[in-house]
Amino acid sequence: MEMDLNAQVKKAGFLQRLKEFPIKLKDGVTKRIKNVQKFGKDDPRRIIHSLKVGLSLTLVSMLYYVRPLYNSFGVSGMWAILTVVVVSEFTVGGTLSKGLNRGFATLIAGALGVGAVHLARFCGDKGEPIVLGIFVFSLGAAATFSRFFPRIKQRYDYGALIFILTFSMVAVSGYRTDEILVMAYQRLSTILIGGTICILVSIFVFPVWAGEDLHKMIANNIIKLANSLEGFEGEYFPSSEKTSKETNSCVQQYKSILTSKSTEDILANLARWEPGHGRFRLRHPWTKYLKIAGLVRQCAFHLEILNGYVLSDVKIPQDFISKIQEPCSIMSREACEALKAIAKSIKTMKRDSVCVNAYIENSKNAIQNLRIALKTSSPETEKDLLEIIPGVTMASILIEIVNYVEKISEAVEEFTGLAHFKETPDPKVSPELGQHQLLHRGSVKPVLEGDSEEENNSSPHVVINVHDEQPPTTSEKKVSVQKTRVGVV
Amino acid sequence: MEMDLNAQVKKAGFLQRLKEFPIKLKDGVTKRIKNVQKFGKDDPRRIIHSLKVGLSLTLVSMLYYVRPLYNSFGVSGMWAILTVVVVSEFTVGGTLSKGLNRGFATLIAGALGVGAVHLARFCGDKGEPIVLGIFVFSLGAAATFSRFFPRIKQRYDYGALIFILTFSMVAVSGYRTDEILVMAYQRLSTILIGGTICILVSIFVFPVWAGEDLHKMIANNIIKLANSLEGFEGEYFPSSEKTSKETNSCVQQYKSILTSKSTEDILANLARWEPGHGRFRLRHPWTKYLKIAGLVRQCAFHLEILNGYVLSDVKIPQDFISKIQEPCSIMSREACEALKAIAKSIKTMKRDSVCVNAYIENSKNAIQNLRIALKTSSPETEKDLLEIIPGVTMASILIEIVNYVEKISEAVEEFTGLAHFKETPDPKVSPELGQHQLLHRGSVKPVLEGDSEEENNSSPHVVINVHDEQPPTTSEKKVSVQKTRVGVV
Repeated sequence: MEMDLNAQVKKAGFLQRLKEFPIKLKDGVTKRIKNVQKFGKDDPRRIIHSLKVGLSLTLVSMLYYVRPLYNSFGVSGMWAILTVVVVSEFTVGGTLSKGLNRGFATLIAGALGVGAVHLARFCGDKGEPIVLGIFVFSLGAAATFSRFFPRIKQRYDYGALIFILTFSMVAVSGYRTDEILVMAYQRLSTILIGGTICILVSIFVFPVWAGEDLHKMIANNIIKLANSLEGFEGEYFPSSEKTSKETNSCVQQYKSILTSKSTEDILANLARWEPGHGRFRLRHPWTKYLKIAGLVRQCAFHLEILNGYVLSDVKIPQDFISKIQEPCSIMSREACEALKAIAKSIKTMKRDSVCVNAYIENSKNAIQNLRIALKTSSPETEKDLLEIIPGVTMASILIEIVNYVEKISEAVEEFTGLAHFKETPDPKVSPELGQHQLLHRGSVKPVLEGDSEEENNSSPHVVINVHDEQPPTTSEKKVSVQKTRVGVV
Repeated sequence: MEMDLNAQVKKAGFLQRLKEFPIKLKDGVTKRIKNVQKFGKDDPRRIIHSLKVGLSLTLVSMLYYVRPLYNSFGVSGMWAILTVVVVSEFTVGGTLSKGLNRGFATLIAGALGVGAVHLARFCGDKGEPIVLGIFVFSLGAAATFSRFFPRIKQRYDYGALIFILTFSMVAVSGYRTDEILVMAYQRLSTILIGGTICILVSIFVFPVWAGEDLHKMIANNIIKLANSLEGFEGEYFPSSEKTSKETNSCVQQYKSILTSKSTEDILANLARWEPGHGRFRLRHPWTKYLKIAGLVRQCAFHLEILNGYVLSDVKIPQDFISKIQEPCSIMSREACEALKAIAKSIKTMKRDSVCVNAYIENSKNAIQNLRIALKTSSPETEKDLLEIIPGVTMASILIEIVNYVEKISEAVEEFTGLAHFKETPDPKVSPELGQHQLLHRGSVKPVLEGDSEEENNSSPHVVINVHDEQPPTTSEKKVSVQKTRVGVV
């Protein structure tokens, strides 16, 4: 009886699942389709690239479909198809790098292969395969070894691969065919046709430039740093305007920078293959981006440590917090603004060192205030050293971050000179712009008790009017920035 | 006259350079040869791999040299050569991944291609190329798009490429030849021959296993951390035995870990393609290595920040240093020993949690001592907070490092269970071994004044005899480790 019942339950369950199967299948399929759609929408260039590859393939198929073309190339047309499939890369730099590597390697290896076959024919029927075998073995091994050298690996890895391929194929098939020159010629010409189609499609149909990607990536990474710093400030010194959840998602933005080195290296390497495009000249200093990226990453390392403190449950005594809050808050905010201005200067390719330097100067002033706060606070406080360690460490790392922001600004300054960035047309515009940003941000902190030591650089009751008619000069701006921050309650 | 003199000087200079040219050329060539030799010696597996590729190429050439083989495969033999060149990767995992991807993709795409050609033939002479073109365009674009998905990109990128290649070639050449089945069969069989040769050579001739490389890399990274920590200790609390230069080179060892993520990801991905080999079973938990590697990298981030303090010119007051020196020194040394024990346990694939836990316990005790030192030091000290900030930050980061060492140890402990590590056969051996290491290290610090608060856990005048006859038990060992460190002056 029991077994019967069991079987019935099982059967009912099976039927139930059978009924549900079409619905589940439909749900699964629609879910997957939505995923794919979202993936395509995230970066529509992916869809465009796929269509471009389809286009190149269709174009190169003409070698077969059109009778006169087929008559002159014959079966060799498949080398053109192969070339199109292999050379079509996402970026112009990638396509050019692969296409040129393939073309030149085929040329050199083809010539050497024909030479090797002619040489081997002098050795008689028995000697020929042995000599050819020795050639293939030694050149194949040597070229494979060369691929381990970092310099060759970085730029000519694909060329070395194609060299081995072409040399072996020409040398080995030279043993069986007498029309080796025709074969080498057909292989070379079809590869050239395939490569040219790819390169033309890549450059002239919605091109994706590795250089531009690198440029944007560096600027975005700097913005991510700024957002994380802003999020950290909101998290540690929360104001009423921002919710903790919102800022927490910002704090994590720097994470992707920690491991972005390999992508940056690849993009910089590909960018060097690209011709001048858009705002970038032929000899744009691509490698300099890597220097800036390195400093940005150093900054991200510090944020990672800082983040550990934000997430940890260690509570810092409130009176110590209130001592360091003001300068720490200004430090991170000004550093954040400096980073945003740097990123903007990179994005627009316009120099804006006045604005950036003003923010950094403010940030460094805040460091001095922090030092004063710490100096005066220690003897009076009743709390022992142990409790304020996390706070001290946090402040200390924040100071390091400000130092790195300054280094980033210097590196970008050097870079803008090399990359011929334009000067900002009207120097009056930039400080004004800085203030608009300030007013726009609206993260003004209430003045806390015990802030008397800050009086030396800002009076807490000054209200500033920012008008478009009378843009303040740079020095005025510097003061007014601090006033806005500290004073407007 | 002057011009004459100039010309004479120029001529003499030119002749001089002409004379020196052969010597310079010879120097340049010998220098380059030495570089290449050194490069090969650094990792002899590179030379072996190059010879293996040469061997595979020679083997596959037989398809042309041996008459009966040539008669059955003909010109299709070149697909075998092509396969050998493209599939021959440095590691077994790489070769297997590419070989299997190539084989299966060719099979599937070949079948689909033949189907597409038969379908297109129903559409008449005019319709055939159009239908084929639509097929090639749409499948090519779809497969290209699929290569963007991270999951496919990670494991089946090469398969997708070969799919596009084979499908296009079969479909397009099907328009011109009637022997399409023969062609597809020949292509598939020659690719199988080439792939099999590669895989056999890769596995049976001096194999390089990606899994083993990953395993060693993680263990070495942990050792690098330990060395850096040791170097840091030597740098910041220098003893007479080590020169600053020697330790400085050690401090920098962690640097390579900061950016090793991409290499680790690639190796873990390739390792999953490999069959069981040596000490590794088929379903070895390769992905768990990445978790450990992530924690190791976190630890390296902290060392990077610490290194910033070592290199900075900030001087910490000597009396504060002497207060925190003892516990900080013990903390880093014990954490360093723990890391070495963890690395050894991974390398030998033997569990040794007793030993590791003892070191970590000692290290955590030292943190408590540091806390006591800081707690007691703050009210008495006359120095203000500002001067000791770098010291406090340093100590704080050091504490974080110890916490991460504990996390690494826990992750490794979990991993050893999954990977079926052996228990250390004789529990008595391990503590004894720990002491041998201690005596061997010889980085014993002189006892400093003002260490009275450390008396509670170690008497400074005890001298320990370590004999092989009487290995101490674990609990004895813990004490004796500290005694050796602190006491032997």
